[in-house]
Amino acid sequence: MDYTTIEAKAINTIRLLSAEAIQKANTGHPGLPMGMAPVAYLLFKNIMKHNPKNSKWLNRDRFILSGGHGSMLLYSVLHLSGYDISLDDLKNFRQWESKTPGHPEFGKTDGVETTTGPLGQGLANAIGMAVAQKHLAAMFNKDDYKILDHFIYAEAGDGDLMEGLSHEVASYAGHNKLGNMILFYDDNSITIDGDISLSSSDDVTKRFESYNWHVQTVTDVTDLDALNKAVENAQSVTDKPSIIITKTIIGHGSPNKQGTAAAHGAPLGDDEIILVKRNFGFPEDKKFFVPTEVTEHYAELIEKGAKLENDWNELFASYSEKYPEDAKLFTKVMNGDIGEEWKELIPHFDNYGEGMATRNSSQTALNAVAPALPTLFGGSADLTPSNNTAIKGWEDFTPENPAGKYIRFGIREFAMASMMNGMAIYGGVIPFGGTFMVFSDYFRATLRIAAISHIKMIYVLTHDSIGVGEDGPTHQPVEHAAALRLIPGVVFLRPADANETLQAWKFAIAHKGGPVAIALTRQKLTILDRTKFASEEGLQKGAYILKDVEGTPDLIIMASGSEVEISLKAAEELDSTGVKTRVVSFPSWEVFEMQSDEYKNSVLPNEVRARISVEAGLSFGWNKYVGLDGSTISINHYGASAPQDILFKEYGFTVANIVSEGKKLTSK
Amino acid sequence: MDYTTIEAKAINTIRLLSAEAIQKANTGHPGLPMGMAPVAYLLFKNIMKHNPKNSKWLNRDRFILSGGHGSMLLYSVLHLSGYDISLDDLKNFRQWESKTPGHPEFGKTDGVETTTGPLGQGLANAIGMAVAQKHLAAMFNKDDYKILDHFIYAEAGDGDLMEGLSHEVASYAGHNKLGNMILFYDDNSITIDGDISLSSSDDVTKRFESYNWHVQTVTDVTDLDALNKAVENAQSVTDKPSIIITKTIIGHGSPNKQGTAAAHGAPLGDDEIILVKRNFGFPEDKKFFVPTEVTEHYAELIEKGAKLENDWNELFASYSEKYPEDAKLFTKVMNGDIGEEWKELIPHFDNYGEGMATRNSSQTALNAVAPALPTLFGGSADLTPSNNTAIKGWEDFTPENPAGKYIRFGIREFAMASMMNGMAIYGGVIPFGGTFMVFSDYFRATLRIAAISHIKMIYVLTHDSIGVGEDGPTHQPVEHAAALRLIPGVVFLRPADANETLQAWKFAIAHKGGPVAIALTRQKLTILDRTKFASEEGLQKGAYILKDVEGTPDLIIMASGSEVEISLKAAEELDSTGVKTRVVSFPSWEVFEMQSDEYKNSVLPNEVRARISVEAGLSFGWNKYVGLDGSTISINHYGASAPQDILFKEYGFTVANIVSEGKKLTSK
Repeated sequence: MDYTTIEAKAINTIRLLSAEAIQKANTGHPGLPMGMAPVAYLLFKNIMKHNPKNSKWLNRDRFILSGGHGSMLLYSVLHLSGYDISLDDLKNFRQWESKTPGHPEFGKTDGVETTTGPLGQGLANAIGMAVAQKHLAAMFNKDDYKILDHFIYAEAGDGDLMEGLSHEVASYAGHNKLGNMILFYDDNSITIDGDISLSSSDDVTKRFESYNWHVQTVTDVTDLDALNKAVENAQSVTDKPSIIITKTIIGHGSPNKQGTAAAHGAPLGDDEIILVKRNFGFPEDKKFFVPTEVTEHYAELIEKGAKLENDWNELFASYSEKYPEDAKLFTKVMNGDIGEEWKELIPHFDNYGEGMATRNSSQTALNAVAPALPTLFGGSADLTPSNNTAIKGWEDFTPENPAGKYIRFGIREFAMASMMNGMAIYGGVIPFGGTFMVFSDYFRATLRIAAISHIKMIYVLTHDSIGVGEDGPTHQPVEHAAALRLIPGVVFLRPADANETLQAWKFAIAHKGGPVAIALTRQKLTILDRTKFASEEGLQKGAYILKDVEGTPDLIIMASGSEVEISLKAAEELDSTGVKTRVVSFPSWEVFEMQSDEYKNSVLPNEVRARISVEAGLSFGWNKYVGLDGSTISINHYGASAPQDILFKEYGFTVANIVSEGKKLTSK
Repeated sequence: MDYTTIEAKAINTIRLLSAEAIQKANTGHPGLPMGMAPVAYLLFKNIMKHNPKNSKWLNRDRFILSGGHGSMLLYSVLHLSGYDISLDDLKNFRQWESKTPGHPEFGKTDGVETTTGPLGQGLANAIGMAVAQKHLAAMFNKDDYKILDHFIYAEAGDGDLMEGLSHEVASYAGHNKLGNMILFYDDNSITIDGDISLSSSDDVTKRFESYNWHVQTVTDVTDLDALNKAVENAQSVTDKPSIIITKTIIGHGSPNKQGTAAAHGAPLGDDEIILVKRNFGFPEDKKFFVPTEVTEHYAELIEKGAKLENDWNELFASYSEKYPEDAKLFTKVMNGDIGEEWKELIPHFDNYGEGMATRNSSQTALNAVAPALPTLFGGSADLTPSNNTAIKGWEDFTPENPAGKYIRFGIREFAMASMMNGMAIYGGVIPFGGTFMVFSDYFRATLRIAAISHIKMIYVLTHDSIGVGEDGPTHQPVEHAAALRLIPGVVFLRPADANETLQAWKFAIAHKGGPVAIALTRQKLTILDRTKFASEEGLQKGAYILKDVEGTPDLIIMASGSEVEISLKAAEELDSTGVKTRVVSFPSWEVFEMQSDEYKNSVLPNEVRARISVEAGLSFGWNKYVGLDGSTISINHYGASAPQDILFKEYGFTVANIVSEGKKLTSK
């Protein structure tokens, strides 16, 4: 290959900056950046519409590096393109408090579009962004004003494509004809264990054709004309997502390591880097070297980017004159401003004493607020009639009707969740998704990425606890309340009745900076009499005194969800026997922990040590509130297939059991 | 269709028993059993080699119903075939302590081969069984004695095939040419939300061809000749797994509901069942009716099954004469008897004071015991050089070398785990699999199924905690120790040094009835001086006093894994300032909880309330041991990308911090 052209130099600068930053950190993955450098170069330099001086420009093309371990590819090309990443930042790769962490983290680095690393998820995020764009474009574009008309580009490697998630999202994208999605498959035939033939022999072309994608192959990634032509073809196919199978050499340019697993995940070594420089005709004695002509070559991107954004600003100004209401709404939603009107629409149930499954009250909440939240956007992983996520008057999001707001995610929980991450990052929309609570395990890996990224979406998790009944232990989430509570940055809510459910939605919609999951029952729960007990608004503090006694209580019963009602009954019985019992409704540990120490101590006074937790789930974690001297009424094993009322009784979730435990504790 | 033939009657009996059991329970899923009844009939009646009177016969064909919600299909055909499921059991469908739970549960019901329900997993289990069979057949079959020569049949529906897991395992099965796997795809075009066109338009033929499967389509499931011919073809293709795309009608036979989502997940209703009976020519006034000729028709299976097993027993007797050592080993491993020899092979490191990453000591353990465990069988999800799961002298399990013991799972964590479930259930082998600890999230949904099923496999989870360092928060498992501990039935071990790691393997291999996960460090840990501190054999009790003081301690420090060493140093410093400090090494909560109250109180005396836990993970759950008056040194947020020693320091995992906390607690 001719390394003397300016293009080759520009590409080789990406390769060497990457290899050197990794060498300096003495940790990292040079293989991907060196192999895929031509794609990054071509996209950032020639193809993508972007403005390095405003990485948040709304109509920019996005680029998602799904193989997040190749982060240096992104940092190098962002640096060269003029984003706010200096050479010093590259030199600080993977160091404490640097802008250039080991894997790209959303919000930490200028120009990084999402958090990637756990394989498959970047691709899924990208497809979520493509969905959000298509939806918002349908809502806001006009025949004469395409205010959102960009592409989502992504890179994915063998790891991404082997992950099951790739199937779910590729199938979804093909079905939904996401022509705005263009994926480069980094086909380097190497995985960590060695040659890909050790573990896979998929026919990727056939596979993606089976999903209704437009498939092309570029047999040599260094053939920029062929790459460019492939992108043009992909752009012209508007009714299918595109994959460009790009043959690359992992660690391209490293004489002794390229094309082998040795180039994947470890620094090349100082000596080898010198050989790379020699190979590329770069000065061997200079580190982090950017040739002047390369600097100049990339420099035009600043002006070009400014012009692109400026043109768009003019377009949007004109749009705003012609469609002032749309422009106002567009600006508002893209700023994440959802207003306050929706809060007024949340009702209050006063049919106290009646039974209502909280999945039903959830549907009431969703339907109540929907009219005031025009970019609420979501659905269910094929459990619409069970999750009760349908909204009156909504149409499906489909290729023919991308303005439709209801998403048929299919039986693809992980795709739903990871696409929701992409949608949330894209902005404008408020994503929500429903499935059975027990299946939160299927997407747990993406929930933590949402939390790391400080992005918000709402999970509607119905079929809480052993209340699921006959479907049995495979469908009863006994450990999932604890498991969801413990993911840092996730807010988990388990409302006790219809009115707490409305408050849970109020909290969820208003909350910022992290995912919210609401656990909802299949079975009916009594609507608590709020003329007798405290207001459901206490939910906004995570835990609140629902029923109290005069003076210091002898006993505190804490309960959440379906166990609150029996706790109230037990407390009344205990009161009548002289055990002064407070009942705390405890829908959310995370929200309670956000309160002041004063508030927390007012609900759970340190001196009261006779404490019981009642929850149809694990005791795991409850000792934080009941201590070593309290007691937990819980289920620390799997449930069984039987009617739910029998299960609650068999497993000790009864008034009598709580009363007995309360007496035991207070007679000590 | 002609419903008067004996075949049709036998099939319609399956349909009606299913519909009626669901009606009586007033909950369940009639659609799948009614649609797929011909397949179940054909397999159990004509195709499969099985013995209804011994559902554990080793060389039986297996049938896995991946769509576990269709459990009544299985229960009905097992009942009719003569398994130990009575009509009363069918009438008790989904009731407390019945043999016929809502979804099939392994170990609960005669003839049920695995636990299914969470979609995709049954298919993955089946493929795991096919792997185990192929491996054991290669080990034990001789040219003249095919002692394992059966097939694995499975059913999967749209939900199974939409799940990402199906991609991972289908790709794995095709790559490994699992010709013993025959899958029926229940192609009924209906999901819970409605027509499949709402969410998917995959070309399933093309998709499975891309995986190197043999693909056939049967356009009408009621055409038994066509079905039979397809199975014969599939059996004859020995170098590819087979999928038979079988067009069915969900709820077949229900005049008002068949072919619609209404037939999927709710009882048909008494009136509709009468219409089904009328349609089939069954007596309308009889419930759970089995025509005499149908009973007789199935009856031959008993004799046929006994003969099949008897022939095999004779074959095996002859094999035992000719190959006595093989026969002995075969019998031993299939009985789950792994002997005691391996225990003797576990070494002890006495290079105290030196550093060794526990992922390295884990490899020592694995290599030490391997020669005495001939059916140890496993590998890594493409992280072999990171997980250190390679074993000296082992070859890869490949189509050309199925006797190979090392499995290249590929970048498919969920497939690895769910296939391991299938292998464990198949028996004979001791499955193990490695990945990064943080990616346990990718297969969590199958870990609980292993626990529900009481089956054992070993997870090698390297790259524990913030010790991962530069790879950053996406790769640092801060919440995963807690998250793994809380799955009921899973044993989680976090060894503190090289010697505890050996003990962890000792525990894991000996343990029965549930999965074991071992958390291992990437970074070096000091090998603790066991001449000074207690023996590492304490690990077998979950927690043990590593370092003690005279009399009652003033303070107890509990720590696990990489935090034990600094806890010991802090304790020495505290001792020197007059705070008598006990250090408890706490590798496993679950194992500690299995001990007697006496032992537990001897380690953590109730009266000592000055307690500190030190663990580079969440505090979540530790209050169970430190109470309301103790303290946790932990990390309750995500880590960061930086060298690991900096992270430990920045986040307070230092001797100074522990000492300061200890003083604070004891000066109260």
